Amino acid sequence: MPTLPALDPSTVPERFGSAYPEEFRERVRARRKRALGNELGLTHYGVNLVTVPPGSWSALRHWHTRQDEFVYVVAGELVLVTDAGEQTLGAGMAAGFPAGKPDGHHLVNRSTGPAVYLEVGDRVPADEVHYPDVDLFVDASFVMRHKGGEPY
Amino acid sequence: MPTLPALDPSTVPERFGSAYPEEFRERVRARRKRALGNELGLTHYGVNLVTVPPGSWSALRHWHTRQDEFVYVVAGELVLVTDAGEQTLGAGMAAGFPAGKPDGHHLVNRSTGPAVYLEVGDRVPADEVHYPDVDLFVDASFVMRHKGGEPY
Repeated sequence: MPTLPALDPSTVPERFGSAYPEEFRERVRARRKRALGNELGLTHYGVNLVTVPPGSWSALRHWHTRQDEFVYVVAGELVLVTDAGEQTLGAGMAAGFPAGKPDGHHLVNRSTGPAVYLEVGDRVPADEVHYPDVDLFVDASFVMRHKGGEPY
Repeated sequence: MPTLPALDPSTVPERFGSAYPEEFRERVRARRKRALGNELGLTHYGVNLVTVPPGSWSALRHWHTRQDEFVYVVAGELVLVTDAGEQTLGAGMAAGFPAGKPDGHHLVNRSTGPAVYLEVGDRVPADEVHYPDVDLFVDASFVMRHKGGEPY
């Protein structure tokens, strides 16, 4: 008998922590991710259900050279920060960040309750990640480097 | 000044209709899709917000040879039908259909109110779509054919 293919995300373990260099972890430390796509056996793209507590960030502001990113707010309120300014996103709002568009983005919870969003990103090879606000980039081999090139 | 990247899905036009051969359209005719990913400039995968009125289906039961599919129920109630049986999905439930897994799926609205879900599918080339319950398959060039091979 095949396995029933749907799941309740609350049954998926939460992933804590960040791979950023220690000096950049503070603002994302409380963020929690459930890797729904992995749990469902998908390999072409990742789908995470992310909980962002008050005061936390989704990530450092960043953009990808080769990955398309999509976010959909499920609950609560998040402020999307990009070069264009700030947009407050409530439940049901969507945003997209096309590969190679050099405009850093992140989601900040300035509200008093938790916010939850879905994030999708494809797994194209040789993606780089750029961080306009800090001395960091991730190269095409996933190595975190200073902007001058030296690895962390 | 760059454009603000987030959108309210209610501002995205709804797409009606189906590319199925006429004899298969009846059960999906009332389904409506908003192509959020396209609207946001994403090209690596599609993200649609789909409204399924009572009595409607998301699609004929099908599976993809090369595309990973993901769905997340936003509102209402849908019954997921696969070879494993039926699962009733309320808001917040997720399901995934890995490329090449030969188990047809679709979502059926047997409730009295509309249901809304997000669907994600990557755009891998040469995907085929198989329909276990009817005399139809879509070949790697998007041609709809009878199972014997003749085009519709």
